[in-house]
Amino acid sequence: MRASLLAVALVAGLAATLHPGNVGAAPRETRIPDAAIAQATQLRETALASDLGYRITQSLTTEVGPRMAGSEGDARAVAWAQAKFRELGFDKVWTQPVTFPKWLRRSESASVLGANAQPLTLTALGGSPGGTVEGEVVRFADLAALEAAAPSSLAGKIAYIDYTMQRAADGSGYGPGSRVRSRGPSAAIRAGAAAYLMRSAGTDSHRNPHTGITRFDDGLTPIPSAALSVPDAQQLTRLLAIGPQRVRVALDAGWDGTATSYNVIGEITGSGAGNRKQDVVLIGGHLDSWDLGTGAVDDGAGVGITMAAAALIGQMKKAPARTIRVVAFANEEQGLYGGKAYALKYAGDIRRHQIAAESDFGAGRVLSYASSAPAHALAADLQIAQALAPLGITHTPGKGGPGPDIGPSAEQGVAWAALRQDGTDYFDLHHTPDDTFDKIDPQALAQNVAAYAVFAYLAASAEGDFGSAAKPVTPPRE
Amino acid sequence: MRASLLAVALVAGLAATLHPGNVGAAPRETRIPDAAIAQATQLRETALASDLGYRITQSLTTEVGPRMAGSEGDARAVAWAQAKFRELGFDKVWTQPVTFPKWLRRSESASVLGANAQPLTLTALGGSPGGTVEGEVVRFADLAALEAAAPSSLAGKIAYIDYTMQRAADGSGYGPGSRVRSRGPSAAIRAGAAAYLMRSAGTDSHRNPHTGITRFDDGLTPIPSAALSVPDAQQLTRLLAIGPQRVRVALDAGWDGTATSYNVIGEITGSGAGNRKQDVVLIGGHLDSWDLGTGAVDDGAGVGITMAAAALIGQMKKAPARTIRVVAFANEEQGLYGGKAYALKYAGDIRRHQIAAESDFGAGRVLSYASSAPAHALAADLQIAQALAPLGITHTPGKGGPGPDIGPSAEQGVAWAALRQDGTDYFDLHHTPDDTFDKIDPQALAQNVAAYAVFAYLAASAEGDFGSAAKPVTPPRE
Repeated sequence: MRASLLAVALVAGLAATLHPGNVGAAPRETRIPDAAIAQATQLRETALASDLGYRITQSLTTEVGPRMAGSEGDARAVAWAQAKFRELGFDKVWTQPVTFPKWLRRSESASVLGANAQPLTLTALGGSPGGTVEGEVVRFADLAALEAAAPSSLAGKIAYIDYTMQRAADGSGYGPGSRVRSRGPSAAIRAGAAAYLMRSAGTDSHRNPHTGITRFDDGLTPIPSAALSVPDAQQLTRLLAIGPQRVRVALDAGWDGTATSYNVIGEITGSGAGNRKQDVVLIGGHLDSWDLGTGAVDDGAGVGITMAAAALIGQMKKAPARTIRVVAFANEEQGLYGGKAYALKYAGDIRRHQIAAESDFGAGRVLSYASSAPAHALAADLQIAQALAPLGITHTPGKGGPGPDIGPSAEQGVAWAALRQDGTDYFDLHHTPDDTFDKIDPQALAQNVAAYAVFAYLAASAEGDFGSAAKPVTPPRE
Repeated sequence: MRASLLAVALVAGLAATLHPGNVGAAPRETRIPDAAIAQATQLRETALASDLGYRITQSLTTEVGPRMAGSEGDARAVAWAQAKFRELGFDKVWTQPVTFPKWLRRSESASVLGANAQPLTLTALGGSPGGTVEGEVVRFADLAALEAAAPSSLAGKIAYIDYTMQRAADGSGYGPGSRVRSRGPSAAIRAGAAAYLMRSAGTDSHRNPHTGITRFDDGLTPIPSAALSVPDAQQLTRLLAIGPQRVRVALDAGWDGTATSYNVIGEITGSGAGNRKQDVVLIGGHLDSWDLGTGAVDDGAGVGITMAAAALIGQMKKAPARTIRVVAFANEEQGLYGGKAYALKYAGDIRRHQIAAESDFGAGRVLSYASSAPAHALAADLQIAQALAPLGITHTPGKGGPGPDIGPSAEQGVAWAALRQDGTDYFDLHHTPDDTFDKIDPQALAQNVAAYAVFAYLAASAEGDFGSAAKPVTPPRE
């Protein structure tokens, strides 16, 4: 912990020292012209009154439905996104191929055996192999308890982590919750377990288990790994309080070669002279979803919000100086493949990215705004925050970070903004069959569209930059 | 409508005329002794502080789990109920065999075909045959619209009723909602449809479809019939708004001979002299559940509430004059088989049934009390209502009716009481995978136990009857 804190401090110091604007002279202060602020006020009201984001989200989740990376639905989503960008009047639309391992879920079931025989509802974790295992269940209260289990102590048994993820508006419960998913299977293998079960990383109480990607540490032989719905986990825990329980887990799932999908990119061309229109403000969401639901809050909403925000900017009499680029990223769910591919392709264009923001935390109202703006852009950052304030958005400098698909670009030096949503209910739905369009509140979605439209328009209209600059390669630690 | 109102008036008139107490002289007024009222006050507080009902419900739903009539779980539930009655100190425990047709659900799936291909979550209606049907979906807004469809107009197609059941504390939305389930399939067959789909008769918004028994009118050839979850119905309706949709429905389900289960009956013997202890106050719930959930609110709670209420009476220093009989009815869900078998067996003992009440509307708090008490028992009825009032229970004379399994006995003349619960959320869970123990609030359950204990104790202590008397056979109408 101390080591990593030190690393952060060093990087911050480096950034301050090495920022190009700091070489030789103080950087010019970034400001947003008053005329642009006035336009943004109008845009905000237009967006609040528009149902465009809601209709785009409805279109994707209804016409395409589930679109797990590499699936037939994913391919239809790519075609949908290109057609939708064109229908919405984007000036330029293109795709960027993204290749990744393809994972398939064919069937899954489980049941308690013996005197209390009954079915259990679960779902395979993404990346799990198939297999049928019958064994006694050994319960652990949390990840640390399983990680402390002695090697071979679970031979032939099923490891089960019964950790309850906590509800929080900022989603802070998901860190520990998702670690149970990402690290639990490897810990189970080290203890010799034949299969791995966990209470879903979710905050609901419905028979809808939460999937999500897991991984197996190098050198370990993967075992069938699945998440029980929260009520089923509670049931299993009650049964274990009565006595030992044998469970049968049958998963038919696994990796199957590679697949190619696409980042789908649309632009509203800027109106600025010379190089300014070649600069982009990047907003977006991810196009893929898990297979269980129709990917409404994760992340149809993010696609709908950002497509609509840019489209509404495109409908203005005059575009802002810089170009608005919307990216519908490929395969976020299984490892940020689209975000990484984007960062790799545009690694030489860091400074052409004015700033980037992703919407990938559901469809709740935006509660706060923050960005990575350095000192010379803090005045402009404050101007954006002031324009967002009438939407009920608080300025929280220093909080938040780039969205997942922006992360790889931000690591390379792209400036980022965070429009942080109310995620109180997000993990009721996230990665479950229940992630469907009916869960989206149209007013909250319109507020999101207004927030992204205002942010993107103002950032694209600023005179000066938000600090994007290629970062020096971090030297390997000794 | 007029004819049936007239029939009700005639029956009421007959009852007033023919009640044995009315023959010759005015009936003696039924009263509850002050000492019994004092005992009931104590019992009420004891019950409110007890978690016995909650623990019984937990035991049934956890140890047995799903227990669809005729299933292995149902057989375990019968054994569980006998053992639980004995463990709770009931004086007499026995079973009554109940035979019925056995229905099986093996698998079920559906998907939209074509350009918007995607899976749909549904569940077969109880009684549906199996079969795989592919066809164009024709939507109807409600049952009347389908019933108005011309014969053969749906040949080769799938009829779909998209009726939205309304939420109400008294469950009044379930009448029209469940008629879509019970009468929709026959209407679909008459219009020539190859399969039948409906929006679930439920008030939730989760991917958990609501099953429930349906029936096919005589002379019709049954077709595969299923309920979509509410979000899936909304999705299908949105898809139909885009254009025609072909859907594949595959059900593996159907009738498979007969099965025998059991009404399980336990008694706390009364302390009254002579015939009084042979009289019974009957309370109960039904032991079977649907297969999708663990039958917590339907009707594990009813079994737990009434078993606990009687057990707490059994723990008093002195039992009330009459016997408390608890019946865990067999196979309510598929046609009130247990309730009908009970009424048939005890048809000669109508007057020995002081009064009967069933808990089968979930685990919400009891909001109101009413009974079928005739004029000479209204004072005692009021005494019971007054003893219930501190539990937040309103006296609503003339409202409500007997619970489903009491119905056949009430038709024969057994007096009934209704302790009507808050059913606001009941149809979020009813007949779905989500009907699990975690949904039960222990405080609300304790309030129910207190209400049933007070009611049963006072009715068993009354001097005089509540009007049970064999009804004359209704003459066939001309």
